[in-house]
Amino acid sequence: MTTVFVLNGPNLNILGTREPSIYGTDTLASIESDLRAQALPHGVDIVFRQSNHEGDLVDWIQEAGQAGHPVILNAGALTHTSIALHDAIKAVAASVVEVHLSNTHRREPFRHHSFVSPVATGVIMGFGARSYTLALESILSSNVKSNS
Amino acid sequence: MTTVFVLNGPNLNILGTREPSIYGTDTLASIESDLRAQALPHGVDIVFRQSNHEGDLVDWIQEAGQAGHPVILNAGALTHTSIALHDAIKAVAASVVEVHLSNTHRREPFRHHSFVSPVATGVIMGFGARSYTLALESILSSNVKSNS
Amino acid sequence: MTTVFVLNGPNLNILGTREPSIYGTDTLASIESDLRAQALPHGVDIVFRQSNHEGDLVDWIQEAGQAGHPVILNAGALTHTSIALHDAIKAVAASVVEVHLSNTHRREPFRHHSFVSPVATGVIMGFGARSYTLALESILSSNVKSNS
Amino acid sequence: MTTVFVLNGPNLNILGTREPSIYGTDTLASIESDLRAQALPHGVDIVFRQSNHEGDLVDWIQEAGQAGHPVILNAGALTHTSIALHDAIKAVAASVVEVHLSNTHRREPFRHHSFVSPVATGVIMGFGARSYTLALESILSSNVKSNS
Amino acid sequence: MTTVFVLNGPNLNILGTREPSIYGTDTLASIESDLRAQALPHGVDIVFRQSNHEGDLVDWIQEAGQAGHPVILNAGALTHTSIALHDAIKAVAASVVEVHLSNTHRREPFRHHSFVSPVATGVIMGFGARSYTLALESILSSNVKSNS
Amino acid sequence: MTTVFVLNGPNLNILGTREPSIYGTDTLASIESDLRAQALPHGVDIVFRQSNHEGDLVDWIQEAGQAGHPVILNAGALTHTSIALHDAIKAVAASVVEVHLSNTHRREPFRHHSFVSPVATGVIMGFGARSYTLALESILSSNVKSNS
Amino acid sequence: MTTVFVLNGPNLNILGTREPSIYGTDTLASIESDLRAQALPHGVDIVFRQSNHEGDLVDWIQEAGQAGHPVILNAGALTHTSIALHDAIKAVAASVVEVHLSNTHRREPFRHHSFVSPVATGVIMGFGARSYTLALESILSSNVKSNS
Amino acid sequence: MTTVFVLNGPNLNILGTREPSIYGTDTLASIESDLRAQALPHGVDIVFRQSNHEGDLVDWIQEAGQAGHPVILNAGALTHTSIALHDAIKAVAASVVEVHLSNTHRREPFRHHSFVSPVATGVIMGFGARSYTLALESILSSNVKSNS
Amino acid sequence: MTTVFVLNGPNLNILGTREPSIYGTDTLASIESDLRAQALPHGVDIVFRQSNHEGDLVDWIQEAGQAGHPVILNAGALTHTSIALHDAIKAVAASVVEVHLSNTHRREPFRHHSFVSPVATGVIMGFGARSYTLALESILSSNVKSNS
Amino acid sequence: MTTVFVLNGPNLNILGTREPSIYGTDTLASIESDLRAQALPHGVDIVFRQSNHEGDLVDWIQEAGQAGHPVILNAGALTHTSIALHDAIKAVAASVVEVHLSNTHRREPFRHHSFVSPVATGVIMGFGARSYTLALESILSSNVKSNS
Amino acid sequence: MTTVFVLNGPNLNILGTREPSIYGTDTLASIESDLRAQALPHGVDIVFRQSNHEGDLVDWIQEAGQAGHPVILNAGALTHTSIALHDAIKAVAASVVEVHLSNTHRREPFRHHSFVSPVATGVIMGFGARSYTLALESILSSNVKSNS
Amino acid sequence: MTTVFVLNGPNLNILGTREPSIYGTDTLASIESDLRAQALPHGVDIVFRQSNHEGDLVDWIQEAGQAGHPVILNAGALTHTSIALHDAIKAVAASVVEVHLSNTHRREPFRHHSFVSPVATGVIMGFGARSYTLALESILSSNVKSNS
Repeated sequence: MTTVFVLNGPNLNILGTREPSIYGTDTLASIESDLRAQALPHGVDIVFRQSNHEGDLVDWIQEAGQAGHPVILNAGALTHTSIALHDAIKAVAASVVEVHLSNTHRREPFRHHSFVSPVATGVIMGFGARSYTLALESILSSNVKSNS
Repeated sequence: MTTVFVLNGPNLNILGTREPSIYGTDTLASIESDLRAQALPHGVDIVFRQSNHEGDLVDWIQEAGQAGHPVILNAGALTHTSIALHDAIKAVAASVVEVHLSNTHRREPFRHHSFVSPVATGVIMGFGARSYTLALESILSSNVKSNS
Repeated sequence: MTTVFVLNGPNLNILGTREPSIYGTDTLASIESDLRAQALPHGVDIVFRQSNHEGDLVDWIQEAGQAGHPVILNAGALTHTSIALHDAIKAVAASVVEVHLSNTHRREPFRHHSFVSPVATGVIMGFGARSYTLALESILSSNVKSNS
Repeated sequence: MTTVFVLNGPNLNILGTREPSIYGTDTLASIESDLRAQALPHGVDIVFRQSNHEGDLVDWIQEAGQAGHPVILNAGALTHTSIALHDAIKAVAASVVEVHLSNTHRREPFRHHSFVSPVATGVIMGFGARSYTLALESILSSNVKSNS
Repeated sequence: MTTVFVLNGPNLNILGTREPSIYGTDTLASIESDLRAQALPHGVDIVFRQSNHEGDLVDWIQEAGQAGHPVILNAGALTHTSIALHDAIKAVAASVVEVHLSNTHRREPFRHHSFVSPVATGVIMGFGARSYTLALESILSSNVKSNS
Repeated sequence: MTTVFVLNGPNLNILGTREPSIYGTDTLASIESDLRAQALPHGVDIVFRQSNHEGDLVDWIQEAGQAGHPVILNAGALTHTSIALHDAIKAVAASVVEVHLSNTHRREPFRHHSFVSPVATGVIMGFGARSYTLALESILSSNVKSNS
Repeated sequence: MTTVFVLNGPNLNILGTREPSIYGTDTLASIESDLRAQALPHGVDIVFRQSNHEGDLVDWIQEAGQAGHPVILNAGALTHTSIALHDAIKAVAASVVEVHLSNTHRREPFRHHSFVSPVATGVIMGFGARSYTLALESILSSNVKSNS
Repeated sequence: MTTVFVLNGPNLNILGTREPSIYGTDTLASIESDLRAQALPHGVDIVFRQSNHEGDLVDWIQEAGQAGHPVILNAGALTHTSIALHDAIKAVAASVVEVHLSNTHRREPFRHHSFVSPVATGVIMGFGARSYTLALESILSSNVKSNS
Repeated sequence: MTTVFVLNGPNLNILGTREPSIYGTDTLASIESDLRAQALPHGVDIVFRQSNHEGDLVDWIQEAGQAGHPVILNAGALTHTSIALHDAIKAVAASVVEVHLSNTHRREPFRHHSFVSPVATGVIMGFGARSYTLALESILSSNVKSNS
Repeated sequence: MTTVFVLNGPNLNILGTREPSIYGTDTLASIESDLRAQALPHGVDIVFRQSNHEGDLVDWIQEAGQAGHPVILNAGALTHTSIALHDAIKAVAASVVEVHLSNTHRREPFRHHSFVSPVATGVIMGFGARSYTLALESILSSNVKSNS
Repeated sequence: MTTVFVLNGPNLNILGTREPSIYGTDTLASIESDLRAQALPHGVDIVFRQSNHEGDLVDWIQEAGQAGHPVILNAGALTHTSIALHDAIKAVAASVVEVHLSNTHRREPFRHHSFVSPVATGVIMGFGARSYTLALESILSSNVKSNS
Repeated sequence: MTTVFVLNGPNLNILGTREPSIYGTDTLASIESDLRAQALPHGVDIVFRQSNHEGDLVDWIQEAGQAGHPVILNAGALTHTSIALHDAIKAVAASVVEVHLSNTHRREPFRHHSFVSPVATGVIMGFGARSYTLALESILSSNVKSNS
């Protein structure tokens, strides 16, 4: 394994300007930078992308899964509505760690259900930008065991 | 901070013998041992306990919270039914990282709701015994920022 | 009648330190003391207990009910989840006044249903520590009439 | 404070003749008389009214709230259906103690939800006519503390 | 097989005094005595226990399951609320016959769902004390076949 | 009592060929034969019938109930949908033991509700063909006590 | 019995002009006239009233019930929302026949539940103005037997 | 019009013996006899049938509807479960008056919904055997107007 | 068209004193005055009324509808509970613009459903007192087109 | 394979006369005739049956399934209510193509759920009589592959 | 303020050809033209866009919000399904007036909930193309006050 | 008619590699090829497209509908979530046959509801790649009759 995909959904492009009381002041650029620094010593490459389009995320999950690369996925609002993402993960048997900056269970009820979780290996939420680094840690430190 | 409480709920005492296809072959003793090894270089002490009684867990959360120690909590089945645990965390403003060995969203619907999540800082699930080490990592590596 | 049981459920042991904006600064000790002072002129003894264990509360309700002593019950979080308490009250035909410090209907929806209410004589909530003294007043001032 | 409003909703005018197995044999006149006797030593005046019209109750709550008088409110069947009463209490920041003769939780499910409770200071139910005297006691004995 | 566990949950300790119109006048002692008499000719030992604490029942199910002893379980009110009991049975692959004195489907809706049933071999309810003897009969007369 | 009706609903005629992993390899004929053997020493006659028509089962329950004969009823799929069977049992005050080969609570949610249970004396499920013999045992060994 | 109350709720005052495709072209006046003609030979007096105020209907039901007069009640939209009417009928043990011009089950779902039905002797709906005459017929032809 | 069909569903064949506190002591034979007497002066023939089979009722509704005869239908328990009856009425545009002996809204919730009502002209319930005679009266006295 | 009815429901009489953070500091008098000024140049008369009684609002909607005058309706809390208002609008085919000072969708769930909306031409909410002037603008500027 | 069963449920016997705007003017006889013509060149025999009785359909599905013949099933209204049909298909592992003349999803909500679909190979609906010919085409053109 | 964004979601590009009975014959071009004419005298520029892609609308809301321009948003079908739009509005604190051509509450239930409303300043619906001009009027005539 | 649109939604581009146990080994290319071969003799052109973007599918349905071409639509996961597709079909009155490779009713509950079905002419599912050829057959063999 030499590549990890980090995929980000709608509105994460404006992270840092968006509701800092919920999401903190980190930006997507600083998160990308942190992850690259964390991956470098392990000889792992980071593919880091963001889109506001569900279709783009479906494309990228297919790309990662077919190449056998693990995925760190923060699907944003699509987490709660997109069966297409669910299907993409399942279709290519992608190994996905679901992350969220905030603890979604402390927010509105419509954020309590995730279509990603049932097809993810694991879930990490509530640690701000560190949710990403913990997710990468979980991938780097060992071969990801299937946990169902 | 020199102490972290790791509290385990019902049936975790028989981990390793219990449904290995879901929970793996790690035992609670091996998890405790891993966490102590991980904490040692940081000069952090681990208080590691398990009980099948809700009342014991309430006592221990009060103890940790009143002493200002962070808690890694795997409440087992009580996750989904115990408002008393929810209240204990809130009452003493305990800083709690919720962990689960399995990804509870891949299992029965009655395991999809957690009374712990709304009062936890963050949630880590689905990585087997490594859910605990990631949780400890999240506490050790930095001061836990409030994220909700 | 010369004895009244006052039984308190999970997390009431830390009353006064716990979320003062909701529960006020009274402690369980000061409530006990107030009730004893109120009962004394009537020659009534107060049995005052607290536990974080559902099983203890079941034991104590059985004890009170079988001795024919009225009960003032603040079951805390167990109010909303414990059918065992419901059954204990019904099984020994205990005469129970349900009390709560806060008005539970101003809080989360999962606190709006009570398994105690359908088997209680009456309910008093929202008056802080005075919920207890009003409950004792209701017992002292007269023979409790069955009201359902 | 020299005045307390006691407001009664639909069908309470025929109390005493109505379903005595649920409501007892007290009449509204005897309740009024008891409350006046209880208030007299404290120099408190009782304004005691009943109407079968929701609009009248809205008027009276506005009147009491704008004058700063506490209210003892038994809204009868309107308890379960009237958002207008809820709004009136909130609009004038009236201090309301909700009372019921019977324990509504022992009756039909449509009596289990109250639109008054979320805007009431406290709730007292199930003690028959004594629900009113306990409510007045809660007002007379001290300054009503906000409890939510 | 030389031992059968018979485990009883909350409030069954006061059987016989408790709501005889629902549960009859048998006591737990007389049930134990009947079962021992029934088991004796088969050289089967009966371990007969009761607790009002969920944690005790979890312990005992683990004990029975790990020793390979079949269990007759009347979990009382915990039947309807305890995922911990469900997990204990599943974790040790205990062979459980669920029994109830009354037919729970003739009672309140909150007694219609059982967390024990989905992990029990079979269910017997509504025959009073004879529910236990029929359950023992089902175990004694043959090797219990898995039926789901 | 000299006669017991054993009534079987839709698809039980093909028992033994039908999904053996759920229902086992017993046939309805072998069950009938076992029951007759069990009843013979007690001088009890078995009326054993099966139909795929709800109307036939209604007729037979009326017949049994009006003659005062106890009924062992496996209503098959009609268990979950037929109010007519419920009414028939109630109308003739039939004494019914409900049986199922499988533990219906381990199967699809639409099999978890029974219209028979609320009017049955007792319920026995999950023991395969032995569910019938346990039911007959419950009738033979004594006069069936009303348990609800 | 010499008097029958016929009470009409909101919007029935404009009957005949209102949605004739649903309610027909009869007016409330013509209905009153028909009922008087029908009652006259039996020496029965008709008290015929309409109000858009729930409180008036509560008053009139109390009046009829306390005098022992049967009531024909078309509560209009209040049928579906008024617990106060339900309570009034129950409080005075009024003998009520519920009528509707239209078959409410052919209309919007919020018209399918009635708070009047559970306390009415009988229900007649869907026959236009003749719903009233059938209701009067049911009262005139005999003493109304309690049917529930 | 010279013929009216009166069709009766499951368990009505044992009317009079069945739960007299709910259904009274009239038998189906006495109801038939009353209806014939009521119809005779109008030169109207009564076709009076009962079956415990849904299929028979479907046949008879088709027969009546295709011949243009009005139907008085008491579908018994099938009222609440049979879409086939609903479809039969609609398919042949049968003119149906739905009747029930008891007021179904005073009974269990599963009797509150009717699949017949949305395709019936009108509904009459709660008058015992007189529900039938009022229904016939509604047909005899005039041409049935469509009311929805 | 020379007249527009502006009808206001419960608690709007105390606008300005009531929860200014939600409703602003405008009073009903200032709104009336603004609307009259806005209508004057168009030769349109404003009938401006308020009541805490549902019955009064039903009367006024009938009055407006029968005279063919458009209505601006802020039904307050009755918006969410009154089928009688719904029926009044429909019965007289009143042309109604529904207004609210606040955006009701930002408030409690019980304010999210409106019985007025399904029979209103249009809905304007969230603009404070200007909700009224926009509604009048929609009526003045042109003949209101039916939009559903 | 030389035989295909075509089974039709309640009310399909009057096809052509029944609601032509929904079901068209084809009759069951013309559908049978079309299917025979379609099957003839393939040397396939059509067994074509209809019943208004659920029990008959259960019998016929058992017959077809046990003989290994594929089934085209239009269960009519029983589609939405019959677990017995569901069980029959599953019990004999019948290969079933579910057909409907109309698109049931364009009709009432109670027609949106099918108990047949979860045990059918495929579903074809909305093409009128051609739903049947497409279903036969799916069977004739090839060996039906299991698709779930 | 010199710019207002007017953003239109899926299928609004074919306005005028689409279901004229619901949406009228205005086209998106004519609406744009009307708004420009209305804005011109105020020196306000209109940015007018439409897309069938959720991602485009998210982009544009971010663009408007970050520039501080108010938005008139008709999200079409996405109104009811898109949490991403909800988040975009909230993330950039965009000032949004939600508009709809039709009164969505008169249509299918799945159009009754809006994810836009809880983050919109106000809502205007049901006035056809004039919903847009009223929305612009609300922005032009004054500084939009926050109303929730 | 000389053109048929065949439109495919998310994840269908990887058909054949995706979960072959559910979807089989056909690829989208082989399906396209089969359809072209089937259409050729009829002089019908096939427009065959796939996208992971909802917006593209909306565009294409508008294109087909406005040109009057029938559509075979497999919307994939969007079937269950997209009101925009529903609206597009309705807006251009497109004639749509909904197809699915698998029988969606045999899968997760969130795949049981379709926003396409209520606006589709017919539905064909569960036949793998042959679902498409049957759909084309339904279009080719005749003029599609409207069936709802």
